[in-house]
Amino acid sequence: MMKFSIMDTDGEARRGRLTFGRGSVDTPAFMPVGTLGSVRTVAPGEVRDSGAQIILGNTFHLMLRPGTDVIQAHGTLHDFMGWDGPILTDSGGFQVWSLADKRHISEKGVRFKSPIDGSSVFLGPEESIAVQRSLGSEVVMCFDECTTYPASVAQARESMELSMRWASRCRDAPLAPDQALFGIAQGGMYEDLRLESLEALETVGFEGYALGGLSVGEPKADMLRILKSVAPRMPSQKPRYLMGVGKPEDLLAGVGAGIDMFDCVLPTRNARNGWLYTRTGIVRLKNTTYRDDTRPIEAGCSCPACERFSRAYLRHLYVTRELLGARLCTLHNLTFFEELMADIRESISCGRLMAFTREFMANYAGERRDMA
Amino acid sequence: MMKFSIMDTDGEARRGRLTFGRGSVDTPAFMPVGTLGSVRTVAPGEVRDSGAQIILGNTFHLMLRPGTDVIQAHGTLHDFMGWDGPILTDSGGFQVWSLADKRHISEKGVRFKSPIDGSSVFLGPEESIAVQRSLGSEVVMCFDECTTYPASVAQARESMELSMRWASRCRDAPLAPDQALFGIAQGGMYEDLRLESLEALETVGFEGYALGGLSVGEPKADMLRILKSVAPRMPSQKPRYLMGVGKPEDLLAGVGAGIDMFDCVLPTRNARNGWLYTRTGIVRLKNTTYRDDTRPIEAGCSCPACERFSRAYLRHLYVTRELLGARLCTLHNLTFFEELMADIRESISCGRLMAFTREFMANYAGERRDMA
Repeated sequence: MMKFSIMDTDGEARRGRLTFGRGSVDTPAFMPVGTLGSVRTVAPGEVRDSGAQIILGNTFHLMLRPGTDVIQAHGTLHDFMGWDGPILTDSGGFQVWSLADKRHISEKGVRFKSPIDGSSVFLGPEESIAVQRSLGSEVVMCFDECTTYPASVAQARESMELSMRWASRCRDAPLAPDQALFGIAQGGMYEDLRLESLEALETVGFEGYALGGLSVGEPKADMLRILKSVAPRMPSQKPRYLMGVGKPEDLLAGVGAGIDMFDCVLPTRNARNGWLYTRTGIVRLKNTTYRDDTRPIEAGCSCPACERFSRAYLRHLYVTRELLGARLCTLHNLTFFEELMADIRESISCGRLMAFTREFMANYAGERRDMA
Repeated sequence: MMKFSIMDTDGEARRGRLTFGRGSVDTPAFMPVGTLGSVRTVAPGEVRDSGAQIILGNTFHLMLRPGTDVIQAHGTLHDFMGWDGPILTDSGGFQVWSLADKRHISEKGVRFKSPIDGSSVFLGPEESIAVQRSLGSEVVMCFDECTTYPASVAQARESMELSMRWASRCRDAPLAPDQALFGIAQGGMYEDLRLESLEALETVGFEGYALGGLSVGEPKADMLRILKSVAPRMPSQKPRYLMGVGKPEDLLAGVGAGIDMFDCVLPTRNARNGWLYTRTGIVRLKNTTYRDDTRPIEAGCSCPACERFSRAYLRHLYVTRELLGARLCTLHNLTFFEELMADIRESISCGRLMAFTREFMANYAGERRDMA
């Protein structure tokens, strides 16, 4: 079973460790997304070498392709994809909301049209947990409804309350003995609903708590408002997970508000689009500036791309659509995110997270301009 | 400078070694194709681990993108792409013939429209050698005209004679001190023209000799006829290179006729299309047979794909277009080709190449059916 211990705190921020049968995870942690049973373009050993200790798998995608029977024929998702560390699986709730056509939501769950073959698929709390149990993930997420943005307070309440009833049913559904179940707080952009949601989850009792329904199109200020007011009120002795976030600056804000876990497709997706993270900002490979730039993406970076290859070479691979480029860029971005998390953890232990955040943001131009 | 020594022979077949400043190459050798400065989908260290000791780079592609100035800013092509072993560059002659639009061939060379941006580009013997010199490849190929198939004897003669005049100009063009220059015999499907071409090349004198203009659409029987009659007549103390070939059965035929070097896109291209080579035939991943097949591609194979992943997993990556799949399949096919060459070399040393060929072909179903 999962154990969580907090070693150091700095303001609301916490440095801790999650321990699973398949290994431990230093928190705050960033989880690369392995949607379809691979962290896109990279091999399991490379994900590990980037510093990642846990990855995310997508229930929605994996139940449709290859199907749980195929994965079970190998054992668990770990055996299927060759990743021997811990895995967190999402519930499919968000993907049903964002990817599926013709959704019909009832108290029981969601019936939708498969985006793969158009067939009718049903996913509810019991079905989601059953799939996640068969995937054998260390952390299982409750099946929830992602509240649409914008939503009126009445809509947000109705959606949140449905998610809470579903969370209770998820708790009752059978899990493997060593799987931890996390509840997901909803409530849209309404703080009181968010706190009510948290309270409902705590009454049921989960091994961890997540904030869902953020980064769904709302203004950044709303996301930060909810984060800063709700995260510190999440149960302090359990891991806190901010789902689907985010950019480096959002990770810093999340940690500052007391979040322990993050996941996001940004480092991997942006890599495939030729966007490379550095401590001073984004290197966009399409920029002709880099045509004959023989420097690595970032001096001092320990990733396999920076170790051996130049910006010009990576730009050439990007321009010519050579697949090695997507992989090298992914390795760089994953390493960047994982090294940022390592620095954040170290800053918490030294009681200087605020100073680190200030220094990082002073150097980091974000997406504002291309780096020379 | 390149050295070539023959250690063992078996009929027409030879086992030998090419030695370059950047390492040695056991022959008969298969050279993976790194068209645009990467062996598609795989990293240099992985190419090395597959058993490859030399790779091929494409002059035509690299001069158009990224351009020789960008590569020269890094040093040589080796420095640009991070491959520290020997490289053979082709001359661009074949690509001008197969890829370029609006070719205008004159005695001086070929003017064509760039397939990248439509601009007018000129490539002749001197230009090709100059590009290859700047790429710093260990083996430089003469700029030639690939004779169209089918061609009348008059057309084939005219084309071959032009290539021979160009070969002489290539010999006169300046090279770096440690670069070896190979001549390319043409002559279409006419043995007498092929031998005349060889004689013309020998009069000029090259460090190695190649057969060009095969595998260009002719019936397999024609290819084998030319191969078997011409290869044994190529200078015996110099390396012999059969360009653009080929399938496993063609490699065996080539070695049997006395060929020392091969290159082909088949293992890499077929991998990206989900065709995997095994000693019993082709595994085509699209076949639903493999949906829940938990076995490796081939039992006993030492490649990174077979070491850890199942046919079902690779099929899943193929079906979902996950890029990791193309890479794992490429690693398998390269390993298959390189292990086949290692077995061929061993068979020559043991004087049992014919027996090995017979055994291989008895097991190998080629492309005839899917493997269970």
